[in-house]
Amino acid sequence: MILHIEKEELIFGINTVQRAMAVKSTLPVLEGIYICADAKGLQLICTDLSLGIQTFLACDIEEEGKVVLPGRLFAEIVRKLPDGDVDITIDDNLNVTIQCMGSRTKMKGLDPETFPDLAEVSDASSFTIAQPVLKDMIRQTIFAVATDETRPILTGALLEIQQNNLTMVALDGYRLALRKEALSAPSEEKQIVIPGKSLSEIGKLLDDDGDDVHIMSQDTHVMVEIKNTRVIARLLDGEFIKYRQIMPTDHHTRVQVAARDLFDSIDRASLMAREGKNNLVRFQISENKLILTSNSEMGDVYEEIPIAMEGQDLEIAFNARYFTDVLKIMDDETINLDFTTNISPCVVNPVEGDKFSYLVLPVRIY
Amino acid sequence: MILHIEKEELIFGINTVQRAMAVKSTLPVLEGIYICADAKGLQLICTDLSLGIQTFLACDIEEEGKVVLPGRLFAEIVRKLPDGDVDITIDDNLNVTIQCMGSRTKMKGLDPETFPDLAEVSDASSFTIAQPVLKDMIRQTIFAVATDETRPILTGALLEIQQNNLTMVALDGYRLALRKEALSAPSEEKQIVIPGKSLSEIGKLLDDDGDDVHIMSQDTHVMVEIKNTRVIARLLDGEFIKYRQIMPTDHHTRVQVAARDLFDSIDRASLMAREGKNNLVRFQISENKLILTSNSEMGDVYEEIPIAMEGQDLEIAFNARYFTDVLKIMDDETINLDFTTNISPCVVNPVEGDKFSYLVLPVRIY
Repeated sequence: MILHIEKEELIFGINTVQRAMAVKSTLPVLEGIYICADAKGLQLICTDLSLGIQTFLACDIEEEGKVVLPGRLFAEIVRKLPDGDVDITIDDNLNVTIQCMGSRTKMKGLDPETFPDLAEVSDASSFTIAQPVLKDMIRQTIFAVATDETRPILTGALLEIQQNNLTMVALDGYRLALRKEALSAPSEEKQIVIPGKSLSEIGKLLDDDGDDVHIMSQDTHVMVEIKNTRVIARLLDGEFIKYRQIMPTDHHTRVQVAARDLFDSIDRASLMAREGKNNLVRFQISENKLILTSNSEMGDVYEEIPIAMEGQDLEIAFNARYFTDVLKIMDDETINLDFTTNISPCVVNPVEGDKFSYLVLPVRIY
Repeated sequence: MILHIEKEELIFGINTVQRAMAVKSTLPVLEGIYICADAKGLQLICTDLSLGIQTFLACDIEEEGKVVLPGRLFAEIVRKLPDGDVDITIDDNLNVTIQCMGSRTKMKGLDPETFPDLAEVSDASSFTIAQPVLKDMIRQTIFAVATDETRPILTGALLEIQQNNLTMVALDGYRLALRKEALSAPSEEKQIVIPGKSLSEIGKLLDDDGDDVHIMSQDTHVMVEIKNTRVIARLLDGEFIKYRQIMPTDHHTRVQVAARDLFDSIDRASLMAREGKNNLVRFQISENKLILTSNSEMGDVYEEIPIAMEGQDLEIAFNARYFTDVLKIMDDETINLDFTTNISPCVVNPVEGDKFSYLVLPVRIY
């Protein structure tokens, strides 16, 4: 293989695929970057078997060939190269030379035949969505994905198409985040569960503008096509929680509050709550005031926020983090908090629209 | 105690003194911030017994008093307060209330009488220096302070006044960094050794502009006065290495090279050197070229840099980090490397001036 490529293009490609590279693996080849130059162009691939990323790069191929390079070292070397064109040559014994200006690095490649194939996903059932929209949907749900493995299905997010709406749902047993978007074109109904880690990496590959992405799925895998890049993620097996049955349909108390004020107050209260180990913040709702309190051996915090309220007074308590998490990702200035009783979930909604919804369980207080 | 203070002023004060706060101590009071409001104004103090910082803040004192507050929690609470004036009150039982807009925090203070006194340092022997100059002197030597404790005196930097020159020297047995400045006024000759950690914190308190600082020392302590802040550091006991005897006076090979090129090449070579564990980079100097090579099981790196040279050809090897460390802190575009033999130290100097000098030992190669 002999090829010439701009340093910046190569760095972009490495940064793209490296997200799927295994960090520590018993198979050294999974800690590598697969490089193949042939009639289709130059492609890089990384995979940790759960997630695979393939990208095509612009370059000048003088002689075809393929190899797997030790990923971390290759990436670091390329990032530190002088600015200019990079020449990469590989001989028949997989000896690789990377040359750029006065810098020349030689390293031993690994056998490309030992690199696992990525799963094939046909485009029989696909839909299209704008990059910033998908990025936003991921950002507003991923934080609620379960981090412990006791119920493996909850370590993923549900992606559901029903009646031309795309819904993403994540929940961990204590809170649930839901984000909905209308699709621009009719699409086959489906329910798939994408592992949180894979979804998070997909989110990082998406631009705030840029072309639409195509998403296609089969039984076991989903493929997301972003320009010259394909991300293939293994799906989680099993049935997701029937989330519609959990969502409360009614409320006895509605609070309208400035999201920023609420965040700042809970953030302060949680400093003291943290000292008390349980991270508990109490809400007292009455007379158009929300009073937040927390305490521990170290002392106590009292916070008063003006609100607009409808319905009954209420005293209820929450794990502070479940509130700060959601307030960080909501873009709305004013939000609604809907309560039923002090032992049933609170629903956090934007005042306008129904694209986002968040449900959080209270902590029982005596 | 009752006082009113601007949040930003209080945060500035906390940030200043917190650098001397003990992180984990058997004496809880050392993890605290001492606060005293009296006729002298409001002062904050932290000390870990080795380093002490005291600062005076502008505020409105309604009633005098003093207390020690749990430092980390107090600092976090103040940083997160709403923008505005902060009211702090302390009752006779050391119950502290911090109030700002709708936020009110209560906590229990510690007995201020248990807080250790800072050492007194008289201004009998003092000198004055501009903040940016002292900041620069610290930055250009501190990295060479020894990090292991086998020779405790080397964990500090020497500060020497001789013939109206202030010299700062740090060395760790493998390399030595020296920075010199002429003092604007005659000052008593002295040699003190300031612990690296204390010197580093002093460096962080200095501005790139701003008033001159006053430095005074006695047998056991040095005091640095920066505006309203006093830093008092315990000195290291013992005699520093006679560094003048180490500095080579002659050279057989002189290399003039662009600092940025040399840094980039060593940086790349060190990626491979790192894989080889010993971090070794070989220098080959001949024909107005500097060739750098490194190798490991993973492969090898070859770097070629144009230089101007005088004297003999040379092959010599170094620990890559000892070169990248110094190249990071030199501001000169072009530097001189002076060599004698491949088993004697290399001296790195700016082409212009003699304010800075760096000596590094080679690694023997066979």
